[in-house]
Amino acid sequence: MAFVRQFDPQPYHVDEEAARKSVFGGLVASGWHTAALTMRLVADGELEPADGILGVGFDELSWPRPVRPGDELHTESEVLEVRTFKSRPDRGLIRVRTRTLNQNGEAVQIYTGNLLVPRRPTAASL
Amino acid sequence: MAFVRQFDPQPYHVDEEAARKSVFGGLVASGWHTAALTMRLVADGELEPADGILGVGFDELSWPRPVRPGDELHTESEVLEVRTFKSRPDRGLIRVRTRTLNQNGEAVQIYTGNLLVPRRPTAASL
Repeated sequence: MAFVRQFDPQPYHVDEEAARKSVFGGLVASGWHTAALTMRLVADGELEPADGILGVGFDELSWPRPVRPGDELHTESEVLEVRTFKSRPDRGLIRVRTRTLNQNGEAVQIYTGNLLVPRRPTAASL
Repeated sequence: MAFVRQFDPQPYHVDEEAARKSVFGGLVASGWHTAALTMRLVADGELEPADGILGVGFDELSWPRPVRPGDELHTESEVLEVRTFKSRPDRGLIRVRTRTLNQNGEAVQIYTGNLLVPRRPTAASL
């Protein structure tokens, strides 16, 4: 509620009565809250090296299902593509599809993002 | 800082010293914070009817420039397309390109979103 009061004060996010009458039939989280929580889950998760990851753009971001009070979310990320730069051997670009799933395994957010990541030093550069 | 500590604890967001040594040369805001603030600016702004707008998906979301401490942001939205549904005369889908600009008029975020919006009653339905 603190998030939506600050950032996304739509009736179906902040007002229980209005939410009940809305298309959702009850309060739902802001998609931007889901996106922010997803960032935290990815940063804390096993997608290495997450420390220093920099999202430069997303080709797709969708919220196929609402997030409701009490839902538990986790993320699954798949690296679709890895690109290196001749000009910047210390960085790479990965294309990642991250799905945020609720406790029933249903996707509540899907994005395909282009992330700049630090590269490990190669044998040649050591 | 409260936002990034909660949602996006990357070194260049939370640690001034690490940020200085990063590609940014100083602290920058989380793109997800920019996205959340943009939501608030759009909801408070002149894009009517913003009350009841529902973002269902984005075809593009990018952060072409970083947001730095003290930056002042505003948004400009362009409605690219309007679609109506025969089955749901009370709702429409608008395709909107929203640019979030800093005080120098530089885009710090661009998205193209598909938003479900309430429709005004037509003469026929009154």
